[in-house]
Amino acid sequence: MSSNSFGKIFSLTTFGESHGSAIGGVIDGCPAGIAIEIESIQKDLNRRKPGQSKIVTQRKEPDKVEFLSGIFDGITTGTPIGFLIKNTNQKSKDYSHIKENYRPSHADFVYDKKYGFRDYRGGGRSSARETACRVVAGSIAKLLIKPISIQAFVSSVGNISLNNPHLIDDYSFIEQNPVRCPDKEVALKMENLIKEIRKKGDTVGGVVSCVIKNMPVGLGEPVFDKLHAQIAKAMLSINAVKGFEYGSGFGGCSLLGSQHNDIFNSDGTTKTNFSGGVQGGISNGMDIYFNVGFKPVATIMKNQNSINTRGDAVKIVGKGRHDPCVVPRAVPIVESMAALVLADFQLRNNNSKI
Amino acid sequence: MSSNSFGKIFSLTTFGESHGSAIGGVIDGCPAGIAIEIESIQKDLNRRKPGQSKIVTQRKEPDKVEFLSGIFDGITTGTPIGFLIKNTNQKSKDYSHIKENYRPSHADFVYDKKYGFRDYRGGGRSSARETACRVVAGSIAKLLIKPISIQAFVSSVGNISLNNPHLIDDYSFIEQNPVRCPDKEVALKMENLIKEIRKKGDTVGGVVSCVIKNMPVGLGEPVFDKLHAQIAKAMLSINAVKGFEYGSGFGGCSLLGSQHNDIFNSDGTTKTNFSGGVQGGISNGMDIYFNVGFKPVATIMKNQNSINTRGDAVKIVGKGRHDPCVVPRAVPIVESMAALVLADFQLRNNNSKI
Amino acid sequence: MSSNSFGKIFSLTTFGESHGSAIGGVIDGCPAGIAIEIESIQKDLNRRKPGQSKIVTQRKEPDKVEFLSGIFDGITTGTPIGFLIKNTNQKSKDYSHIKENYRPSHADFVYDKKYGFRDYRGGGRSSARETACRVVAGSIAKLLIKPISIQAFVSSVGNISLNNPHLIDDYSFIEQNPVRCPDKEVALKMENLIKEIRKKGDTVGGVVSCVIKNMPVGLGEPVFDKLHAQIAKAMLSINAVKGFEYGSGFGGCSLLGSQHNDIFNSDGTTKTNFSGGVQGGISNGMDIYFNVGFKPVATIMKNQNSINTRGDAVKIVGKGRHDPCVVPRAVPIVESMAALVLADFQLRNNNSKI
Amino acid sequence: MSSNSFGKIFSLTTFGESHGSAIGGVIDGCPAGIAIEIESIQKDLNRRKPGQSKIVTQRKEPDKVEFLSGIFDGITTGTPIGFLIKNTNQKSKDYSHIKENYRPSHADFVYDKKYGFRDYRGGGRSSARETACRVVAGSIAKLLIKPISIQAFVSSVGNISLNNPHLIDDYSFIEQNPVRCPDKEVALKMENLIKEIRKKGDTVGGVVSCVIKNMPVGLGEPVFDKLHAQIAKAMLSINAVKGFEYGSGFGGCSLLGSQHNDIFNSDGTTKTNFSGGVQGGISNGMDIYFNVGFKPVATIMKNQNSINTRGDAVKIVGKGRHDPCVVPRAVPIVESMAALVLADFQLRNNNSKI
Repeated sequence: MSSNSFGKIFSLTTFGESHGSAIGGVIDGCPAGIAIEIESIQKDLNRRKPGQSKIVTQRKEPDKVEFLSGIFDGITTGTPIGFLIKNTNQKSKDYSHIKENYRPSHADFVYDKKYGFRDYRGGGRSSARETACRVVAGSIAKLLIKPISIQAFVSSVGNISLNNPHLIDDYSFIEQNPVRCPDKEVALKMENLIKEIRKKGDTVGGVVSCVIKNMPVGLGEPVFDKLHAQIAKAMLSINAVKGFEYGSGFGGCSLLGSQHNDIFNSDGTTKTNFSGGVQGGISNGMDIYFNVGFKPVATIMKNQNSINTRGDAVKIVGKGRHDPCVVPRAVPIVESMAALVLADFQLRNNNSKI
Repeated sequence: MSSNSFGKIFSLTTFGESHGSAIGGVIDGCPAGIAIEIESIQKDLNRRKPGQSKIVTQRKEPDKVEFLSGIFDGITTGTPIGFLIKNTNQKSKDYSHIKENYRPSHADFVYDKKYGFRDYRGGGRSSARETACRVVAGSIAKLLIKPISIQAFVSSVGNISLNNPHLIDDYSFIEQNPVRCPDKEVALKMENLIKEIRKKGDTVGGVVSCVIKNMPVGLGEPVFDKLHAQIAKAMLSINAVKGFEYGSGFGGCSLLGSQHNDIFNSDGTTKTNFSGGVQGGISNGMDIYFNVGFKPVATIMKNQNSINTRGDAVKIVGKGRHDPCVVPRAVPIVESMAALVLADFQLRNNNSKI
Repeated sequence: MSSNSFGKIFSLTTFGESHGSAIGGVIDGCPAGIAIEIESIQKDLNRRKPGQSKIVTQRKEPDKVEFLSGIFDGITTGTPIGFLIKNTNQKSKDYSHIKENYRPSHADFVYDKKYGFRDYRGGGRSSARETACRVVAGSIAKLLIKPISIQAFVSSVGNISLNNPHLIDDYSFIEQNPVRCPDKEVALKMENLIKEIRKKGDTVGGVVSCVIKNMPVGLGEPVFDKLHAQIAKAMLSINAVKGFEYGSGFGGCSLLGSQHNDIFNSDGTTKTNFSGGVQGGISNGMDIYFNVGFKPVATIMKNQNSINTRGDAVKIVGKGRHDPCVVPRAVPIVESMAALVLADFQLRNNNSKI
Repeated sequence: MSSNSFGKIFSLTTFGESHGSAIGGVIDGCPAGIAIEIESIQKDLNRRKPGQSKIVTQRKEPDKVEFLSGIFDGITTGTPIGFLIKNTNQKSKDYSHIKENYRPSHADFVYDKKYGFRDYRGGGRSSARETACRVVAGSIAKLLIKPISIQAFVSSVGNISLNNPHLIDDYSFIEQNPVRCPDKEVALKMENLIKEIRKKGDTVGGVVSCVIKNMPVGLGEPVFDKLHAQIAKAMLSINAVKGFEYGSGFGGCSLLGSQHNDIFNSDGTTKTNFSGGVQGGISNGMDIYFNVGFKPVATIMKNQNSINTRGDAVKIVGKGRHDPCVVPRAVPIVESMAALVLADFQLRNNNSKI
């Protein structure tokens, strides 16, 4: 399997650079017979796209998906689904200053060393623009895994955090605020923090939490493809992610077994859910919940010392239109990657027993 | 690729249940020409094996590896390396009480649901005994990736934690104490805590930290097989792991970009290393460091309410010989999984450019 | 790996139906640093495209490839190479008669049964139009494996055959005749036969032979991915192929060992080459040669009895513009698939020994 | 996926050299719930094992399989099935003469060049002894794909051939003669030919034919993993195979479309079966039939000129106990590889539509 592919049965392969003519992908292994509504896919894309609110990058990209194959009369045919998102708002000039310079904490340096040279425009392949393709595929994956529901939201920005994010049961406010935080009061604080930081030309990190409900029992494939291991890989493969924890997470690691064990009810559900819906790498039917930590965006509108390709000292300052904080736009990406993992495991699980 | 295989070029496939006749594995894709010293492999296995100290399970398993193929005159031949570790100390009777009962926070329930029935003896395939095979393969992987060095150690047990574990530069004490903590004073506190908890029939979680030095630039394959994403999967695939963070980790997610960016020196190294040795999914030559959180062992020597396969209420109490805390024995497993990831990426990187 | 992907390191994923908006593909694992000349790729495409001569289908498709990613300033970047070939000359009306009918010896029936329904226009995914994408990728693969040269040609049409096709050493006439047969006299006979058969509304099968020169020693990966096994799969995956033989082939299977063994020269070359350049699944540096048999095209311009989706008897007669014989256009496809196999094995072989 | 693994869902990984302590394998992806009868597996192994009759090698190997995991109380558990076949009758001394010499048309030379050195004893990994592991896995695969039946037999030895092997409907004699030819008279001629050739210290090639009955519609995954393409790879991966043809085969390639098309009956079966049970890479429910050509065994008991590792001229003469003709023992191997392909596609097909 290539490194630009994800998933064993339901698989996504992506291609494209941020400043090429288009990005796109191929979804293979999607069963025939799924009704596709382009509108709902576009809706997910719109949650990720630039320019959607005042607190994200002001680039204007329509991020309109075009399907090229695999769907006939609105139904998946079982053949590969090819799709494109054209790049329409590239300002490559914005990047001429980094052609020979390495931006701190970006991938410029390592791409040059690994591949001998790089497409420097907008980060090229290392740009988070690639994740739009994941949203397209994730949106189709969600159709396959119904009635499973996946809801991500922002639980931290800088030092402002939600308490017990996984216990929140009202998600109605998430899409009604630009931060995508389910709590009105906390959302406002986060929004203000982001605005303030942007004014200073700086950026800030945050955390996205995700809750998956209506899980069937049995998804996940021991020993290496444990459900949570594959979700972890999926999340860490998203740009800027630094950490992943599920269920009780790092906090649970200081508990005692007698505190942490989830006692069964007679129907196989559990009274507590420290396990986060996964035991031994296989879903147990309880809600899955996890946190994904994102570092602050590396491009800042401040002067930074750096080096060029020859090792000379240079000054660098962010140009172009960048996000002061990625977590609001990361929410649909986290959901999409979770959906890709679950769709793949659902298909794989069809062959667990005769 | 099967779910019991790990790695694309340098790959390990494992098999075996804790109470079958043997566990074992096949390493495929190991280049020819590597001199194998069985002693150094056995040494790593001994760091994982039961009965090695007073604070781990008192089962006595020699965990002796036998190689069946792929090595000729002490040198790898390029053909698959098959190996076995015989199970010699099974006391299946210890498990007859769980044949029809589901232990809380174990995989009993989900295996039954997913596969229709299960080998209940000692957890069967879900037993951490399987990880011995990973240590064998990891030990060979370490030979391939020289001079990269991988050092894991215990940084937390319950609420006792090392400060700044990644800044520790003296590892000499790690193998001189049963907890595998590099700090003498903290190690003693941890050891005492584990003993105390064991006396109560309880268990406790902890954190293993890992530092990788002498890294080359260029390992890791965007976009899905990012270096840290694959390490995350590797770690989360180890039994009982709840979380993974690398570099600045979750702590870094509350910082500002101006605080978090790593400024280059003229030679391409960086003054700080919040990135944890990875940028854009590719190693940048700086040290890689990460934390892996382990939940408390689910088997406790206390009465717990549970259910049997028919959903009836039962009482369950741990029998057999179990670990009060897994992190001391998890240290070589973490190192081994890291080595498998790096060996695979080293081989894959040979084809990055012409 | 998905079923629309081919190759482990150097991999091609294709998508697209014959009457959708476009076909295309993604090449992943191509090393950075290869200079791409679009003209030479287009030249290979033109050898496959419809309408190129009087003895092939008279559809007019420019089959112009557009690259979307992975190439910067004319050089491969090591990131996935996405490409498109737009479908410009679809006459879907030509196929309305088969919407509910199953054409004999076509894939209509099995697609309907396997997937529940099908894109019936022009065979949809089962159309040989998909092979244009293989030619694009194969053309790039050829650049990677220089100085290996791959030459395919037509060695049989119906009962007209070349003698000892692998001993021919003058390939200059191949591209100078519409049949792509290297022998002037035989080519003319074949051309006349095809014309005659077309006049009758019928079709005819044939054989493509291929010779690969300048082979290095060491390509191929035992035991399952033997070089010739992977070439066989590559060839049988081309539409209409019924058989594959390499080296001495089926003819060699009636010989004695004393006749068939290839005796070494002192430099490791062999005096004879019944082995066809492969021993034990690994190239030995001698020329590789093989034959690929193609059945007659199933679409004929004659009345045939058939059934519709309800099992009712129907009469069917080919409409549209079809090939009376596929082998002339199959020549570049055979070369391309061979190139894909060799490129992948060349990269894999880089990791055979330390 | 490693080169010693075969199959995407139902997969076999093999390891082992002919003169190591054991050969073995791991079957992963076998669904839980299949009742395993070791006797029937051993019966298939006995059909492949040396020493079974006067016309095969007289080595005495019991080829007894031991299962190590994945089967509990006689039922598959869904976890990997590890197994071993110990090597008990190695006479490594028989091979000391080839330590530094290259046998003509063997893999000695290419293994040395590819891997830098080789396990020379008995051909090491390149020995056909490895195929015993395929028979173990194939025998389990057969259980999964019931009621599909797979029957292979010998259709040619040297110039003695069965007519229309695929039309034979009485298979009762196959296991009653050492050649495994279904026709009494032809079988005797073949047996005599083999004996005669052996007396001369020579070897001879042959053809194995295979017929698969009770096929469901829908197995096979376009475009690269076409059913017949994967069977072709499976067959060519068997030692000594030079060619593969299915359905009408190479003979069909000289026919006209009007002769070759298979006309439907109202139930979707076809009146003729030139297609060989596969259309567009997907099974159509008709019988699958194919031929596999095997070259003469390279080890002959005659003096041959050869070279040593330094390129010096040497004389070489076969020692040890070798087959004068491999096809009788190849019959169960062909069946096993076919079963592996079908089992994998059966599981993959479960996800073709929702």
